[in-house]
Amino acid sequence: MELGFFTMPLHPPGANHADTLEADLKQLIYLDQLGYSEAWIGEHYTAEWENIPAPDLLIAQALGVTSQIRLGTGVTCMPNHDPFSIAHRIAQLDHMSRGRFNWGVGSGGFPGDLHVNGFDPRTGANREMTRQAVELVLQLWKDPKPGIYKSEWWDFNIPEPEDDIALRVHMKPYQNPHPPIGVAGVSPKSETLTMAGERGWLPMSINFVSEHILRSHWTAIEEGASRAGKSADRSNWRIAREVVVADSSTEARKQALSGTLARDMECYFLKLLPRSKMMGLLKIDPNMPDSDVTVEYLVDNIFIVGSPEEVTEKLSSLDESVGGFGTLMAMGHEWVPEGFWKTSMGLLKEEVMPKLKTLGR
Amino acid sequence: MELGFFTMPLHPPGANHADTLEADLKQLIYLDQLGYSEAWIGEHYTAEWENIPAPDLLIAQALGVTSQIRLGTGVTCMPNHDPFSIAHRIAQLDHMSRGRFNWGVGSGGFPGDLHVNGFDPRTGANREMTRQAVELVLQLWKDPKPGIYKSEWWDFNIPEPEDDIALRVHMKPYQNPHPPIGVAGVSPKSETLTMAGERGWLPMSINFVSEHILRSHWTAIEEGASRAGKSADRSNWRIAREVVVADSSTEARKQALSGTLARDMECYFLKLLPRSKMMGLLKIDPNMPDSDVTVEYLVDNIFIVGSPEEVTEKLSSLDESVGGFGTLMAMGHEWVPEGFWKTSMGLLKEEVMPKLKTLGR
Repeated sequence: MELGFFTMPLHPPGANHADTLEADLKQLIYLDQLGYSEAWIGEHYTAEWENIPAPDLLIAQALGVTSQIRLGTGVTCMPNHDPFSIAHRIAQLDHMSRGRFNWGVGSGGFPGDLHVNGFDPRTGANREMTRQAVELVLQLWKDPKPGIYKSEWWDFNIPEPEDDIALRVHMKPYQNPHPPIGVAGVSPKSETLTMAGERGWLPMSINFVSEHILRSHWTAIEEGASRAGKSADRSNWRIAREVVVADSSTEARKQALSGTLARDMECYFLKLLPRSKMMGLLKIDPNMPDSDVTVEYLVDNIFIVGSPEEVTEKLSSLDESVGGFGTLMAMGHEWVPEGFWKTSMGLLKEEVMPKLKTLGR
Repeated sequence: MELGFFTMPLHPPGANHADTLEADLKQLIYLDQLGYSEAWIGEHYTAEWENIPAPDLLIAQALGVTSQIRLGTGVTCMPNHDPFSIAHRIAQLDHMSRGRFNWGVGSGGFPGDLHVNGFDPRTGANREMTRQAVELVLQLWKDPKPGIYKSEWWDFNIPEPEDDIALRVHMKPYQNPHPPIGVAGVSPKSETLTMAGERGWLPMSINFVSEHILRSHWTAIEEGASRAGKSADRSNWRIAREVVVADSSTEARKQALSGTLARDMECYFLKLLPRSKMMGLLKIDPNMPDSDVTVEYLVDNIFIVGSPEEVTEKLSSLDESVGGFGTLMAMGHEWVPEGFWKTSMGLLKEEVMPKLKTLGR
C-alpha cells in the first residue's frame, strides 16, 4: 500500500489567506521530505472553509520546493473552467513539474461554486459538462484541429496555423499522452468511478464514506473496466481517510476528539453534509439517525485513529474489507498543534506503512 | 532609475516546453540574486515563440525560489479570462507572494489569441471588454455583492452568503486594496497609458518603440493624470528596452547582431510587426521604408547595446530625451551563450545602474 495525502484544505472562516496558504505549502514540503508519494489539493471558490480557488497555483509554488512527491489537483472542477484555457494551464503545469503531476478532474460539489457558474446540480448538467469538457481537453492535446468549438458551455475557435509567425496551438502535456487523470467518487456505485474504470483513470474514493459504500465503489470501477474489456487494477485505487496516529491510542483519540479534525467535522462537514443529503454515506447502519453521526461515532467507525499498532490493524482490516486498494490518502487538517500532527504523519509513514507493504496488490 | 525585467518569453518554435520553462525560471532566480527589482512575464496561447499561456503558474513556482524580486503578469490578457475566476486566481497569487506581486493587465495583442476568444481587434471589443473586466475585478475585491453578473462577455452569479457553512465569496488580495496594476502601452499617445495616468496604475512603455513615441506616451500619461486632477509621477513610468552589455562595445554589438536577440527579431518580430502594421513604431524617421528596419538599424537606434560606459551614456540620453522615467525593464531573450548573458545582466545591474541612481526622479 502506498501513502498519499489529500487536502481540501480546511481552515476556519476568517483565517488569513496568506498564513493558510503558507501552512498548506509547508505541509506539502514536510510530506515530500517524509516520502509521501502524492498529494492532491482541492479547488473551491465560495467555500471559506476550503479556501483555495486555484490549486494549480499552490502546486506550482510547491514544485520549486519539493523533490519527489507527485502533486495533483483534487480536483479541477471543470464547470469552473473553459476547456481551451484549462488544457493550456494543465499542460504547462505538467511541463513545469516534468511529469510530477496528476490531473484530478470533477464536476464540482460545493453548492455555491455550482451556483456561480449557473449549474443546478439536480439537473446533472455539471456532470455532463464535465464529461464533455474532459474529452475535449484530451482531444485538444491530441490534435487541436482548427475550427469553431461551441456548445452550451463554451465557445472558442482554434485558428489555422500560420507558419511564418508560428501562430498555432502548440502546447501538449509533458507526460505522454497526458498526465494521469484522477476522479473522485462519493456516492454508492458512483458513475464517476465507473468512468474511471472504463477509461483507465485513477479512481479515488473520498473520505468518510463507510466500508459498504467503498465496496460498491470497487464494483463500479470493475463494471467500468469490464465495459472496456479491461480488468481493473486495485493498485490504482485510492481511498481517502482521516488518519491520526500517536504513541498511544489514548493520545490519538484525545486529539481526534478535541482538535482541528473534530472542529472541521463539527463546525463544517456535519453541517454541510445534511444539506446535501449526504449523511447516509457516513453510516455503517443505514437506519441510524443523523444525530448519531457524531465525531465520536466517526472516530470509532470511520476514521483511522490510534497507536501505530492500532492504525496498522485498522488499515489491514479496511484493506481486507474492501478487497484491497493501492494508496491510502491521509486527509489534511490544520496541523495544530504542529508537533503532534507532524509526529502523526511521520508515524503513519515510518511505523505503519512498512507493515502494510504487501497489501494493495 | 530602478532596474527590472520583462520577458515574453521568446523561444524558437519546436523548443521543448519543459526546458524553456526551466530556463525562464532560472532567469528569474538569477535576476533575483542580482537584485533586479521586478520581472514581468507575458501570457500567450497561440504564439509558439512566446510560449507561456499561464504566467501566473510560472510566477507561483518562482515565488518559492526567489526572495526579493517583485513578480508580475506581463500582462494578464483579460479577453482570455472571466472576471470571477481571474479575481480569485490573482488574489490567491498575491497572498502566496505576501504582496511581492504586480498585476499587469491588457487587452491582448497577438492575433491568434484574440481569434481564440472571438474578438476582432478592429472593432476594439477586446479593449472595451478589458476596461469593463478590470473594473469588475476591482469591484469583486471591494464588495462582492450577491447577484447576477452578465454582459456580452461573461455570465456568472455571486451567491447569497450562508453563514452556517461559510458559503461566501471571501477572497480579497493580500495588498490593500489590491496589487499595483500595470498596463503596457505601444501606440503613439496610447489610450491605455492615458488610463494608467488617470487611474494611478503603473504605465509601461513596451520595447522597441522609438523615442518620439515614448515622449507621446508620457504626454498620454500626464493627460490621464490631469483628467483625474492628479499629477503623473515619472518614477512609476517603466520603459522596456533590449539591453546588451559586454566588457567592450565590439563584443556587445557582435552578440546583439548575431545571437538570440537578432534571431528573435529577424525570425519573429520583423515578420509579426508588419502584419499588424506596427513597423512605424520602430522608425526614428517616419518616412523610412520598412526594409530599412533591420537588426543593425535597431542596434544602432533603438536597442541599448555597448560597453558599460556606452550603455550608461545611452540610458542617460534616453532618460533625458523622454524627460525622465523610473524603471528600465531589460527584455528577456534566451541566455545563449549563458555566460555572456549573465555577464550582460550583471554588468547592467552592477556597473551601469549605480551611475544612473539620481535619474528617474
